[in-house]
Amino acid sequence: MPIAPDVKLGADVKIFHPALVNLYGCTVGSETKVGAFVEIQKNASIGARCKISSHTFVCEGVTIEDEVFVGHGVMFINDRYPRATADGALQTEADWQVVPTRVKRGASIGSGAVILCGVTIGERALIGAGAVVTHDVPPDAVVAGVPARLRRSGESR
Amino acid sequence: MPIAPDVKLGADVKIFHPALVNLYGCTVGSETKVGAFVEIQKNASIGARCKISSHTFVCEGVTIEDEVFVGHGVMFINDRYPRATADGALQTEADWQVVPTRVKRGASIGSGAVILCGVTIGERALIGAGAVVTHDVPPDAVVAGVPARLRRSGESR
Amino acid sequence: MPIAPDVKLGADVKIFHPALVNLYGCTVGSETKVGAFVEIQKNASIGARCKISSHTFVCEGVTIEDEVFVGHGVMFINDRYPRATADGALQTEADWQVVPTRVKRGASIGSGAVILCGVTIGERALIGAGAVVTHDVPPDAVVAGVPARLRRSGESR
Repeated sequence: MPIAPDVKLGADVKIFHPALVNLYGCTVGSETKVGAFVEIQKNASIGARCKISSHTFVCEGVTIEDEVFVGHGVMFINDRYPRATADGALQTEADWQVVPTRVKRGASIGSGAVILCGVTIGERALIGAGAVVTHDVPPDAVVAGVPARLRRSGESR
Repeated sequence: MPIAPDVKLGADVKIFHPALVNLYGCTVGSETKVGAFVEIQKNASIGARCKISSHTFVCEGVTIEDEVFVGHGVMFINDRYPRATADGALQTEADWQVVPTRVKRGASIGSGAVILCGVTIGERALIGAGAVVTHDVPPDAVVAGVPARLRRSGESR
Repeated sequence: MPIAPDVKLGADVKIFHPALVNLYGCTVGSETKVGAFVEIQKNASIGARCKISSHTFVCEGVTIEDEVFVGHGVMFINDRYPRATADGALQTEADWQVVPTRVKRGASIGSGAVILCGVTIGERALIGAGAVVTHDVPPDAVVAGVPARLRRSGESR
């Protein structure tokens, strides 16, 4: 079931290839477009009029507000120190705490970017392609690089 | 329809898993091999005897000449300042201009690389794995890093 | 055949979406979990109680020991100087040599990381998200960045 029955889709959500995505337990707002090879996990929330491009992974704990562009191959994260096992047995949900991330209205995330957990990306901020975001990004700012550094502050605009 | 009817495939193109790709409106030259989880958009052109490896995204505006190796998880880009919406409504094709990219004959692009738009990658150039290419790459050059910098010029060979 | 008949699966391997993976000629140990949009090539070996997250590519020549966490969108490599063709014809397996990589027991690889070939990642080492690993990583060490550099040695713990 690539789109699980518990997914909440708003009006006019466009999923280009329903057989080539993996959505479960998430919310996707009206008119948002979702590309191929996208996974959106439970308890992730996507706003209205967003574009979630192909090959992107949105994990539990991520909130994406309205009108956000997420490029291709973007990876979100919700665990700072991931491990496969705890005391020799596979970790279960009881073994870790989801660290939330928020992408605010109108922001854009370039393709291939990696967004570490616990950050807030401000309104209309622009994340450069291939950036690794490790800290909060102010509204209207442009960041790029590994780790992502400020290239243009919102104030200078 | 993971391979849309409007895709133009040359002779002996090998698509390993036709149900696990997303190709539409593009051209793929003879003998080229295409891996799983690959998306190639309309108006992208791939030459003959190329390898397009799994998890790679080739967007509109990209021209890949003959005998090019594209690694796994490579992301091309055609929009410098992507946004989901314009004046509060989802962007349409009228709202942006595709910036073209060209990869010349015999070049190789390492896995996980991100190729920004508007660049030309020269003949036989080698792009290191994980590089973010922001400028033209000369023929026979080797570049790597974020942003990609010259590691070996073609002239020194 | 997204899971080829020659794949050797241990007991209780969990492949969340068998129709959305591409596994062939590989070995996956007991209790290991494999996400969507994962490709694992022939002669790759994954241990027991691992997590192989969505969008990850594990190539021929990679050995992953037990209890290893591999994040989302991780790319392994087995060829230092990849080319599509040799003397104008598509390369065949005779044209290159697989360079092996080993990830030792209990290590964790963050999402979006790229692992170059010929490296050994030590026991319990932690690879930061988005890192490009070009050298061996000692046991218990933490590395991050492009190229990946030591952030905390195992000895200081």
